[in-house]
Formats: sequence, C-alpha cells, structure tokens
Amino acid sequence: MIFASDNWAGAHPDISANLSRHAAGIATAYGDGELDRAVYQRFSEIFEREVAVFFVATGTAANALSMAACNRIGGVAFCHSEAHMNVDEFGAAGFYTGGARMSPVPGPLGRINPQALDRAIMRYSQDLAPAGQPMAVTITQATEVGTVYTVDDVKAVSEVARRHGLPLHMDGARFANAIAATDISPAEMTWKSGVDIISFGGTKNGCWMADAVVVLNPDVARDLRLLRQRAGQTFSKARFISAQFEAYLTDDLWLRMARQANAMAARLAETIEDAPTGRLAWLPQANEVFAVLDRTNAEKLQAAGAKFYEWGVPQGFDGHLGDNEAIYRFVASFATTAEDVDRFGQLIAG
Amino acid sequence: MIFASDNWAGAHPDISANLSRHAAGIATAYGDGELDRAVYQRFSEIFEREVAVFFVATGTAANALSMAACNRIGGVAFCHSEAHMNVDEFGAAGFYTGGARMSPVPGPLGRINPQALDRAIMRYSQDLAPAGQPMAVTITQATEVGTVYTVDDVKAVSEVARRHGLPLHMDGARFANAIAATDISPAEMTWKSGVDIISFGGTKNGCWMADAVVVLNPDVARDLRLLRQRAGQTFSKARFISAQFEAYLTDDLWLRMARQANAMAARLAETIEDAPTGRLAWLPQANEVFAVLDRTNAEKLQAAGAKFYEWGVPQGFDGHLGDNEAIYRFVASFATTAEDVDRFGQLIAG
Amino acid sequence: MIFASDNWAGAHPDISANLSRHAAGIATAYGDGELDRAVYQRFSEIFEREVAVFFVATGTAANALSMAACNRIGGVAFCHSEAHMNVDEFGAAGFYTGGARMSPVPGPLGRINPQALDRAIMRYSQDLAPAGQPMAVTITQATEVGTVYTVDDVKAVSEVARRHGLPLHMDGARFANAIAATDISPAEMTWKSGVDIISFGGTKNGCWMADAVVVLNPDVARDLRLLRQRAGQTFSKARFISAQFEAYLTDDLWLRMARQANAMAARLAETIEDAPTGRLAWLPQANEVFAVLDRTNAEKLQAAGAKFYEWGVPQGFDGHLGDNEAIYRFVASFATTAEDVDRFGQLIAG
Amino acid sequence: MIFASDNWAGAHPDISANLSRHAAGIATAYGDGELDRAVYQRFSEIFEREVAVFFVATGTAANALSMAACNRIGGVAFCHSEAHMNVDEFGAAGFYTGGARMSPVPGPLGRINPQALDRAIMRYSQDLAPAGQPMAVTITQATEVGTVYTVDDVKAVSEVARRHGLPLHMDGARFANAIAATDISPAEMTWKSGVDIISFGGTKNGCWMADAVVVLNPDVARDLRLLRQRAGQTFSKARFISAQFEAYLTDDLWLRMARQANAMAARLAETIEDAPTGRLAWLPQANEVFAVLDRTNAEKLQAAGAKFYEWGVPQGFDGHLGDNEAIYRFVASFATTAEDVDRFGQLIAG
Repeated sequence: MIFASDNWAGAHPDISANLSRHAAGIATAYGDGELDRAVYQRFSEIFEREVAVFFVATGTAANALSMAACNRIGGVAFCHSEAHMNVDEFGAAGFYTGGARMSPVPGPLGRINPQALDRAIMRYSQDLAPAGQPMAVTITQATEVGTVYTVDDVKAVSEVARRHGLPLHMDGARFANAIAATDISPAEMTWKSGVDIISFGGTKNGCWMADAVVVLNPDVARDLRLLRQRAGQTFSKARFISAQFEAYLTDDLWLRMARQANAMAARLAETIEDAPTGRLAWLPQANEVFAVLDRTNAEKLQAAGAKFYEWGVPQGFDGHLGDNEAIYRFVASFATTAEDVDRFGQLIAG
Repeated sequence: MIFASDNWAGAHPDISANLSRHAAGIATAYGDGELDRAVYQRFSEIFEREVAVFFVATGTAANALSMAACNRIGGVAFCHSEAHMNVDEFGAAGFYTGGARMSPVPGPLGRINPQALDRAIMRYSQDLAPAGQPMAVTITQATEVGTVYTVDDVKAVSEVARRHGLPLHMDGARFANAIAATDISPAEMTWKSGVDIISFGGTKNGCWMADAVVVLNPDVARDLRLLRQRAGQTFSKARFISAQFEAYLTDDLWLRMARQANAMAARLAETIEDAPTGRLAWLPQANEVFAVLDRTNAEKLQAAGAKFYEWGVPQGFDGHLGDNEAIYRFVASFATTAEDVDRFGQLIAG
Repeated sequence: MIFASDNWAGAHPDISANLSRHAAGIATAYGDGELDRAVYQRFSEIFEREVAVFFVATGTAANALSMAACNRIGGVAFCHSEAHMNVDEFGAAGFYTGGARMSPVPGPLGRINPQALDRAIMRYSQDLAPAGQPMAVTITQATEVGTVYTVDDVKAVSEVARRHGLPLHMDGARFANAIAATDISPAEMTWKSGVDIISFGGTKNGCWMADAVVVLNPDVARDLRLLRQRAGQTFSKARFISAQFEAYLTDDLWLRMARQANAMAARLAETIEDAPTGRLAWLPQANEVFAVLDRTNAEKLQAAGAKFYEWGVPQGFDGHLGDNEAIYRFVASFATTAEDVDRFGQLIAG
Repeated sequence: MIFASDNWAGAHPDISANLSRHAAGIATAYGDGELDRAVYQRFSEIFEREVAVFFVATGTAANALSMAACNRIGGVAFCHSEAHMNVDEFGAAGFYTGGARMSPVPGPLGRINPQALDRAIMRYSQDLAPAGQPMAVTITQATEVGTVYTVDDVKAVSEVARRHGLPLHMDGARFANAIAATDISPAEMTWKSGVDIISFGGTKNGCWMADAVVVLNPDVARDLRLLRQRAGQTFSKARFISAQFEAYLTDDLWLRMARQANAMAARLAETIEDAPTGRLAWLPQANEVFAVLDRTNAEKLQAAGAKFYEWGVPQGFDGHLGDNEAIYRFVASFATTAEDVDRFGQLIAG
C-alpha cells in the first residue's frame, strides 16, 4: 500500500537483466560507445525523427539543463504556477541558468491557460523596457496533479509560444504515463504539436536512474552538450544508462509499465469513489490519484500502513473541502499490484 | 590493449549482481532507505569515524560540490597547477561556486609543493586587499600523473592549510589505487593526516556509477545536502548507488580491484622498460604509467590496436625528450589482464 | 511637461555645489575617508540608530545586493507580484544571488496582502520538501503604483516575516516621497516597524547618482561589503557619493525635494480630475499619478509635448476601462514646477 | 606626499565645472540623451572609428563585464599571472561570467610572453578534451607594475589571440598614462594593433567616477548592453558620466592630466635614484614607480607622512633584495605636484 511516490519502486527485472548483460567488456566512455549510439537511434525511431539525446542524473537536472540551453540574458521562462520545476526543484533552474526567472502562469488543474500565457509573455515583450527577455515556455506532461494535456491543449500552448518566438519544453518525468493514457504517438504528442525539447524520464517508471534531455528541434538547445559537461552530468560509463534505456524501449516495456501504473491508479480511483469516507478531488488521467479525505480518516489509513501524502489545493479545484478535510495524493507505479490496491480498498471501506 | 582510461571498463560482476539483488521491492526514496543507511555506516567503518556520505553523479560533480561547500565570497581555492579539477573539468568548480577561483600551485609530478602553497595563500591573506578570500586547498590522490602522496606529504600540505584556517579536500577519483599502493589505512591517509573532505570515486574502479563526497570533518561542508539538491544531483532511487557501494566495500572488493589495476600498471611499466623503443617517463606508483615513446612508434602501436593517448609534459619531469618523442599515458583498470599487457609487450618489443 | 520618470531630471544645485566643494584635495579611497564617515554618521542620526551604509551604483544594484546578502541555497524571496525588483530589473536579483527565486504575492494597488504572504511562505516551509528555503520578504515604499504603506501596513507584513524568521527588505527608491507623504519618521517607517534593510534611493529625488543599501539590523546582511566588492560596486572615490548625500541630508533637502514632487503630483491629480477627458485610476499618495485616458486623447497630449507612458492594469484596480481607454503613469520630480503642471492642465482641459 | 594610489585624488576642476553646467534641465534617461550621444561620438573620434561606449560604475565592473561579454561555456580567459583582473578584483570576473576561469600566463614585468600565451591556449584547444573553451585574452596597459606595452608588444599578443580566434581585451584603467607615455594614438595602440575591446578608465586620472567599456570591434561583445542591465550597472542619469567624459576628452585634458602624473613619477624616480638609501626596482614607464627600500627606512618615511605601500616581487625582477629590503610602490596622479615630490626628496635624502 505504498502510494507515496513512483520513485519508491526499484527497477524492472528486464532493466536489471540488461545491465548485467552489458557489464562486461570494454566500451568507449562518455556516451560514444556502440550501445550508446544504438540507444540514441532507438529514441529517433520512437520520436519518428532524428533527435539528440543527452543522459543526465535526475529529472531535476533534465529540466534545469533544458532551461540553461534556452537561456537568455535577463531571461524569463513561462511555466504553470504549480510547475514542479518552479516550486519543487530547490531552485535548480535558477542555479543552472545563473538567475533566469520562472514566470508563473495560471490554469486549471495543472494545465497552462493559453490566453494567460500570452498576457504573461507580453509583459516582457516591450522592446525598450528593462524587464527581461522571454526565453522559453515549459509544460508538464502528465501534469503535477495527474491530468494530461490533450494534443489540442499542447498545440494551443505551442501556438502562443511560437507566435512569440519561444521554444516549448515539456517536462516529461511522467511522459510514459501520458502516452499510455492517451494512446497518442510520442511524435504527435511532442514535435508534431510544437514541442521542441523534452525531459524524458525513465526513473519514475521502472528504471534505476535513466533520465535524458531529448532535443526534438535541432534549432534549439545547441549548447546542451557543453552545459551538461560543465554541470558534472556527463557520465563516463554512459552505457550504464544506455543499457537501461535499451531494455526500457524494447517491446514497449516503457508503455507496458506505464499502462500498469495507470490501470492501478484507475482501480484505486474506483475504490475511493466507492468508499463511504472519501471521494476523488478530480478525475485522474494518468498514474496519480487525488482524493479528498477527512484528516482523521487519513491518519488512520496511514497508521494502518498505507503510504500517501497531503497535497495543496490546486488552481481549478472546484470541489468543496470540509473543515477537517484535505486533498491527498496517491501514486501508482509499474510495481503497484491489484492486491496492493485491494488491500487499501478493504481498509478504506473499513 | 585498451589503456585509454579506467572508465572504459564496465562493472565488476559482484557489483552487477548486487544491483540485481536489490532491484525488487519498495524503499524510501532520496537516500533515506535501509540499504542507504547501512552503506553510510559502512563508510564510517572504513574511515574509522562517523562520516557523512553524499552520492553524486560523477567525479566532476563530487569535486565541484566539494568546492561549493567550502565556498566563500571572492573565494580562492588552491590546487596543483595540473589538477584535474582546474584544467580538465570544463570549469565545473567555477560554475558550482558561482565564480570562485582556482589558484594554481606548482610542485613536481602532480604533488603540491607546501612552501609554494604557503606563498600562494599569503597572496590573498592581507586583510585590507580586495584580492579574495582563501577558501580551501585541494590535492589529488593518486595524482593526475600516477604518483601518490605519502602520509607525510599529505601532512605537509595539511599543516599549511590548517595554519591558514583552510579545509583540505582530496580528489580521490583514484583513492582506491592510492590506498592499494601504499597499504595505508583510509583513516590515516585522510582525516588523521588533516584531510577534511574527499571525493570518493568508485566509477573508475569497477562500479557502474558510484561517486560520493565523504565529509570527514563535521565542521566543514555543512550545506552539502542543500547544494546537491539544487544541483540536480540528489538521486530518488539512491539505493541503486548504495547497492554498488555495498558490494564495492564488501570483502575488500574495492582494494582487490585497485590492486589488480596497480599490478597491471607495474607489469606494463616493466614491459616498457624492457622494450628497446620506449622508456618510463617517471616511476608509476598507482595504476597509470607514463612513457616516453617516439611518435612514429606510438602511432604504429595505436594502429596495431593499442589504445592510449599523448600527455603533456608535467612539472618535475626531469627526463629528456628527443625531437620526435612525446609522453604517453597508459591506464590499467580492474579489468586489465596480464594477457592484455603481454600482448602489448610483444607489440612494443616488436 | 516631462512626466516620463523622476530620473529625467538632473541634480539639485545644492548637490552640484557640494560636489564641487569636495573636488579638491586628497582623501582615503574606497569609502574610508573623513567625509564618508561623516555621512555614514548622518545616516545613523536620520534613522536614530547605528546603521551600516553601502553606496552602490544604481537602485537595481541596491535591491539585488540586498537579496544577495539575504541569500540562502535554494532561496526564495517573497515580493509583490508587480514588484520592480521582480519584473523590471532584468533579472538582476536572480543574477546577484546565483539563481534565487522571487515568489510573487498578490495584494491590491502595489501592497502585499499579509495573509497571502503567509500562505506563500508556508508553501516553502515544510521541512522535508525539496522546494526551497524562504530567505526574505521585500516591499516597495512608495510602491510601484504610487501608493504608500502605512506604518500599520508595514507592521502587518513584518509580523508575518518575523514569524517565519525572515528578514524584511524595503525597496526605497522613492523612500523620500513616502516619508514626505506620511510625515512618519524614517525610524518609525523602517526598523521600528520591522524593516531590517533598505535600498535608500537618492537618484530619483535630486541626486546625480546616489543609492545606498542601509542595513538597519546588524544581524542581517553581514556579507554585504564583500558581495559589493565582488560585484564591482565598490567606488574608489566614494567621496563623490558622500558629497551628494551630505547635501541631500542637510537641512532636510531630501524631504523638501520629495514634498515638491508630491505636491506637484497632487496638483496634477487635481488637474486630471477636473479635466473632462480623463480621470484618476486611483488616488495618488506620493509622486506618481495614474490616470485613465482615452488612447486617442493620450496620443494627442503626447504629440503636444507631454511625456508620459502607458502602464499595465494592476491588481486591485476596481475602476472601469472603456474600449479605447488605458492607464497612464505621470511622475513628478523635485524639478517639476507648477507651470509644467498647469501647462499640461491647459492642454488636457482642451 | 600621498603616493598611495591615483584614486586618492579628487576630480579636476574642469570635470567639476562641467558637471555643474549640466546639472539643470531635463534629459532622456539611461544614456539616450543628447549629451550622452555627443560623448559617444567623441569617443569614436578619439579612436578614429565607430565605437560602442558603455558607462559602468568601476574599473572592476568594466573588466568583469568585458569578460562576461566574451564568455563561453566552460570558458577560459588568458591573462598575465599578476593581472589585476585575476588577483585583485575579488573574483568579479568569475562572478560576472558565472564561473569562467582566468588562466595565468607568465611574462617579465607585467607583460604577457606571447610564446607562453600560445602554449597556454593550446592546453585548451584539443577538440575532444573536456578541458574548457578559450574565450579571450586580456592585457593591462599600462601594466600593474608601471610598464607599458609597445605597439609591437601589443601586436605580438594579438597575433597569438587572432590565430586562436580569440578577442583581445585591454584593461585600460591607466590607458591615458600609457598613451601619454608613448605618444602613440589611441587607435594605433588598440584596434589597429588587434585590440577588440577596452576598459577605458577615467577615474584614476582626474574624473570622479568615469569608467566605460569601449567596444572597438563590432563583432565582439554584442550582449554588453543586456549584461550591463542585468548587473545593475546601467545608470538612469547617465549624463552625469557623460558630463565628466565631455570635459575629460576636451582639449586633451585627459592626456594633459596623464602627462602631469607621468612627469611627477619620473621626477620621483630621479629623486629615488639620487637618494643614498633607495634605488629603483626597474625603470618606470608611466605614473607608477617601484623602488627597493630598506624596511626600516620605509617605515621612517611613512612615519614622516609619506603614503606608499609594499608590493610583491613580480616576475622578471632581476635585481637583488637585501635581507631587510622590499619593493614599494609609489603612484603619481594628475594632482601630484613638484612640491610633493621634492618634499619627499628632502625626506629620503635624509
């Protein structure tokens, strides 16, 4: 009954096995080995175009380096008010850019409102004002509150970005879950809809440690290799990441794991809907479920062994919170089982 | 015959096996799991005191974060003129510190001259001068040119540092090789000789990706956890690093691997000494061999499949270089075999 | 009819004369001369306590250095959503802090809402979350939209800051105008109400170039001297700033100039209220007037020689904007005369 | 007898008078006023080509911004080992560049040795090495030890820089003294000899506070305006700097002041040569004199009211230092008089 986060799970056996398979033998270091190249090629196939792949240590590093690669002097990036990159990454984007600002844009349930985005960018677009230089727009897919941008949603944002000449970044820490949820192709969800660069996360979805920045538009982020080097994020034995991604991207393992996580989230959502003492805060669309629970009840569940945390009230929440009620987040992972969920179901049905 | 670098090797089978062993099951993220704590404890045993361990992505990150943790406004760190951190890490230390300077100190064959260090620090110690604030001294063990500081050498440096109130950092990317070469205990080689903080490298010595900053003196580097967080170097599934270090530090695996690398370097050194067409540039003390070769000869060896690179002429080289001669570096790793060396021996004996 | 900004005016004759008076002769450089010390002492008298004074080149530098002096790793400063420091200083605060974030807090007409501030800080106060470290609160006095915090307003903000252990900074680019408008003593308006550090501006109010950070609470901003040095903001011939401040702070020149500016703003406000074609957007409280004008009318006035600019719609504007209407800002300075205002009055009266 | 530094002097009366003359009236802010433009034009005349002029607060800021404008990721700038920018500006260049390194190059008496420069750059020029990217060369004219690069010296350096594709910066804090000493035109001394960008100092030579970065080659430093903005170095009432430079550059005032300073340095040098108890350390070429004195004697002179400081032993000093002897620096300024020097002469003559 561990719904604390998808990074509490370990690695999928196929990932482990592939690591062992590639452990022996000599390979060129720093990401120039044969396996590395094969994996880069695999990414290009999945995205249906030639892409550039940069392994990094964490999702935070992927986001921060993406911003650094889009950086301008006095730069301002536009993100959702509740974007993980802005409020939950300890200022990494500011550090990597030497001080670029994140300008928060409102929008319901984790998704940027395109009109509000337009207004926010305009604030910085007057030529003479010493305000700053717009540098990028970033969205999170799936979002921080378990919702998913449709292809049309992505296009609405990218049109605004494009009109202002700004690259569009996607924080894809849970990209697999969004793809699994929508059955839209990675290409369609990204560059065909105007996304230029993506933080492609494998760690939350069954890898040990596999995160990458994938540059979809060769005109952006040209200095990424050098920025990564300077940040101490260039792995000497890069094949260790490659071995994970090779397994991850073979036979749709990444989507199979995401589908399992999403399915378990859906099962959990049903369980909560059915329970007399809780209700969904909004409809989950990927692998995260947000529920309104009575605090006393929540503590009882936690005391009984369920792991999950309280969450803030996001923009666009149109439900009601009773005096002793709060919103709680439950995250399902590739390793979550129906038994886990059902045990929780018995508990909450209690 | 791959002597290009010790990071061209993969991972030791014991490391791989332990990763697989720990892949399943749920664990607290961000380095707070049971395995993580056990591994921190193991570090404390090896260093014979309570230490604080911070996993990071690369040796460069370990060094740069160590400097960031010692940072002062207008800070100046003192390192050997040829220190990897200063001349081979793409300015990572400058980036992580927001611009601290590395002041180069001379010394023969990779080792800082303590008197020169004293003079260099004095330059910045006049109270009124707007020159800068000394912040740290850093040495590399084993050094960039395959030599090793004796305990007395370390103490001579640490006495100067201590007199100026500066913490002493050790870049231990090849710490295992230095320990294996000297048979001095890790405690004696570090904090008992005045070292406060060390970049402890496992990656070059048989791990996949296992680097850590180990804080030996609790009075220094107190912000390391936060600095690491901001740098996107805090792993969610930290147990993946822990699993490597657990195997690495069990039954002296780390020293056994380092001894193998050192022994192969010694065998290679003998081979080169015996060859009619090459000679040692200086005596190797760990797992790196530097030889003077005729360029034409070197290219012939490379063409025949031997991998090794030319190196610059270091301070303290007192040999002679003929017109067409240069210095070349050969690195042995845990995976180097006597057969590798002997094949090269036949080639060079040629 | 130049109402573009208060920095379009030159220097008051007394300021100029004092500069000439101090031009000859030798003085200790870097702010340690006799005149410098006398001026620091004068600041202490005006603030009724021992303060530390740091001259800097611009108001932007004063703000950015203040933030740098309050900086923490992963730091978050809390400011009004429309704070000059956040949206109009080209990211200087981010640059000086190496990436600290400004978290925008709402509030009507330029003044932070204390409850909203409390909520914003709480977001970053959970111990375990890798969100960031609250580092400071900053308010602007007089505000960006010509309003003034009362002493009670300041106290309401400082109580929240104090409860969270955060220093309170005041951006006093127009501090003189706020003091002149309220007749509150500088001490009462600042440290007696919980302000720890202030950007004290003279440039917009009749000096050539005289800005300073004044540290009111000796427990904060201890590294300011060093941070200023590193930023290239330490003047060798500091007496040039001292000479300006000496005149500025003698015989209440600073308040006399501010009163003139405020009075001219009030006269302008009346003029606009009386005009058939314009109306005040809200009541001005210092030296800036915001008016709603028809765009066509505004362009006509500008074409006739009046200098003023359009402004965005701030939070808390509760008026109505017609289809072709916008808000415009008019700034009066020490050099604005009744004739200037009346000429504009005739123009707008049409 | 104040020979402590040229920044202990105040401002020349013509500078003061011009400031007063321009104090009244309204002018466009931020350096776009009529006077500002006239002064930029004057710079272009003096340098005999269209140049771009950026006023800044200090010489340190001029240097640091110049480096920021030449910055590259992992950047390395090459300077003399004793360059003020590297060892006496509190790490400002590192701060402004977010961590670029200064690589020290040797050379006798403050002047870079071109061959050593070439070798230093080569260290960072191998394509595959993660060492860094060369970004600029910087020289100081007149140098930190009172010597002057001849035009041929400048050309020898610029040829090396050009061959490696690097811009050449000149730290001209005492550029006037170098021009006055050599009677070479500013154009010949700079861009005609390969200098691309110069820190043009007026503060040490009779201005209050007048420093500028002058971009001579329009292909370099294109972001300087934005970098200056972000650094809080863009003056609102820029005409205050313009008024100083207008007087400074009229009727050769700048060269007349520099000639006076140089002449007084020469007179002082003669005096010291004639004295029984001191000798020149090397021949002065501009406005700074370096002398070898017995420490006891130096203290006696200082006790009698002479202001001057001890200096380190520079590279290329080929004299002898007795047991109790040291090198001392004496700086003459536009305000130094023959009487000052002769009083010192009587003192040292004993």
